[in-house]
Amino acid sequence: MIPLLTASQVIVIQFNDLDPMNVVWHGNYLRYFEAARSELLNKVNYNYGEMQESGYMWPIVDVHIKYIRPLRLHQRIRIEATLLEYENRLKIGYKIYDDQTNQLLTKGSTTQVAINQSTSELEFRSPPLLIERVEGTIQGPIQ
Amino acid sequence: MIPLLTASQVIVIQFNDLDPMNVVWHGNYLRYFEAARSELLNKVNYNYGEMQESGYMWPIVDVHIKYIRPLRLHQRIRIEATLLEYENRLKIGYKIYDDQTNQLLTKGSTTQVAINQSTSELEFRSPPLLIERVEGTIQGPIQ
Amino acid sequence: MIPLLTASQVIVIQFNDLDPMNVVWHGNYLRYFEAARSELLNKVNYNYGEMQESGYMWPIVDVHIKYIRPLRLHQRIRIEATLLEYENRLKIGYKIYDDQTNQLLTKGSTTQVAINQSTSELEFRSPPLLIERVEGTIQGPIQ
Amino acid sequence: MIPLLTASQVIVIQFNDLDPMNVVWHGNYLRYFEAARSELLNKVNYNYGEMQESGYMWPIVDVHIKYIRPLRLHQRIRIEATLLEYENRLKIGYKIYDDQTNQLLTKGSTTQVAINQSTSELEFRSPPLLIERVEGTIQGPIQ
Repeated sequence: MIPLLTASQVIVIQFNDLDPMNVVWHGNYLRYFEAARSELLNKVNYNYGEMQESGYMWPIVDVHIKYIRPLRLHQRIRIEATLLEYENRLKIGYKIYDDQTNQLLTKGSTTQVAINQSTSELEFRSPPLLIERVEGTIQGPIQ
Repeated sequence: MIPLLTASQVIVIQFNDLDPMNVVWHGNYLRYFEAARSELLNKVNYNYGEMQESGYMWPIVDVHIKYIRPLRLHQRIRIEATLLEYENRLKIGYKIYDDQTNQLLTKGSTTQVAINQSTSELEFRSPPLLIERVEGTIQGPIQ
Repeated sequence: MIPLLTASQVIVIQFNDLDPMNVVWHGNYLRYFEAARSELLNKVNYNYGEMQESGYMWPIVDVHIKYIRPLRLHQRIRIEATLLEYENRLKIGYKIYDDQTNQLLTKGSTTQVAINQSTSELEFRSPPLLIERVEGTIQGPIQ
Repeated sequence: MIPLLTASQVIVIQFNDLDPMNVVWHGNYLRYFEAARSELLNKVNYNYGEMQESGYMWPIVDVHIKYIRPLRLHQRIRIEATLLEYENRLKIGYKIYDDQTNQLLTKGSTTQVAINQSTSELEFRSPPLLIERVEGTIQGPIQ
């Protein structure tokens, strides 16, 4: 799969995200993914505000996370979000790296689908606005 | 202060709420308070749904928590929520007990005020519906 | 796959787990899975305390969640955790149902591996104590 | 009270921290406080690692939060943590500002006490190492 578009976010691991094994509790990673996804959607100019205005909700319907190495207190991590699919649904891939060593720590993906807010129905193709904005961004200035 | 009305909720502490010191991270207690507050507001028949329908938001404007003894993995705790004020604002007190030993573990309070959804303005007296329902519940069948 | 062993947990959805779309934010489901997994591991008598005592950590290395229908405020959900694999790793499947209607809302799985605490090394077979306890439980009284 | 020492942290509010009222759920603020407290303790060179090594735990025994204005999606907030007391306990004050407008949004405080890890006993005076490091930092280079 050719990565279409990428954005990243750097986060320093805080105490409250750790569990008794002194590593980040596995459920907290979805907040890290969310922060990087938000950067990616900002780049496309189709984040939560634009979704709402354009009349669509985009619930997450599928999540996958592969934990390779643990995340530790005060570790500086870089989460990279990459657009994998956009024509029929929004599939984003994630990789978490140690920001100093560039060691790969985690991989994952989320899939979202468009729901029309007025009909509450699932759209089997992505709304034209998303497609337009993604394609405009891809052909735009190199990041 | 005479406790007006009380409700309680029993929760078993899960792994994900613990921090590296093997005790519940202090920020997680507000979820425990929320669960007991919800029981109390159900009793009054003025929970989130009724607040919304009656045209008011009730943001929390003040929180106080006093941590007396730590909460531990798989401990069964009982959170008691007590109505302390309702005429001008909604002040609720909380006590967390070990459900087996009845030892007091935590004390706290939250204060909420009514905001009129159409004007976005703060109400200096509680909306009549809340007052009516609280007073109806207090004079109602003994809990 | 023959379900080996099942346990369940009932939870009422609280306000703090909802997002601006009025449904549970997708990252919170892993707390629901954790609560049901804990019940399952209690049944096997190999929960966090026993893992620690027996000299192993069991980090989660893989998570998959398929969100079928949204979870809503005050909905009473039942999370069923089922043991899917235990000989080489611990794979548990989850189904979340509406507790009143029995409608299926979510499916998922988690995979854990054993790490020897003294060597920090991954065990390619599950420690004998887990295998013994699982097999003892399966052959034990019908649940 | 003379503020002894200050540190700050900038955070952009993410979707997952919002509740159905489109504002940050009140319980999430303690994560924001934690991030700023960590910066402050780094400045003193007495953060979680140093606490552990010096033989003390520092549980939080008291929290107070005053919510002045709501926090909204993608708002860039600055959390300032200020050392208020250190001789007998560690009391830290927090102010959250909108990072663009400098409008004050939230005020709060946390209080921690030292517990000797070998005796599990409360220390009625702060351990000498903390006092030394705080006083060294205050008399050190102006921040």
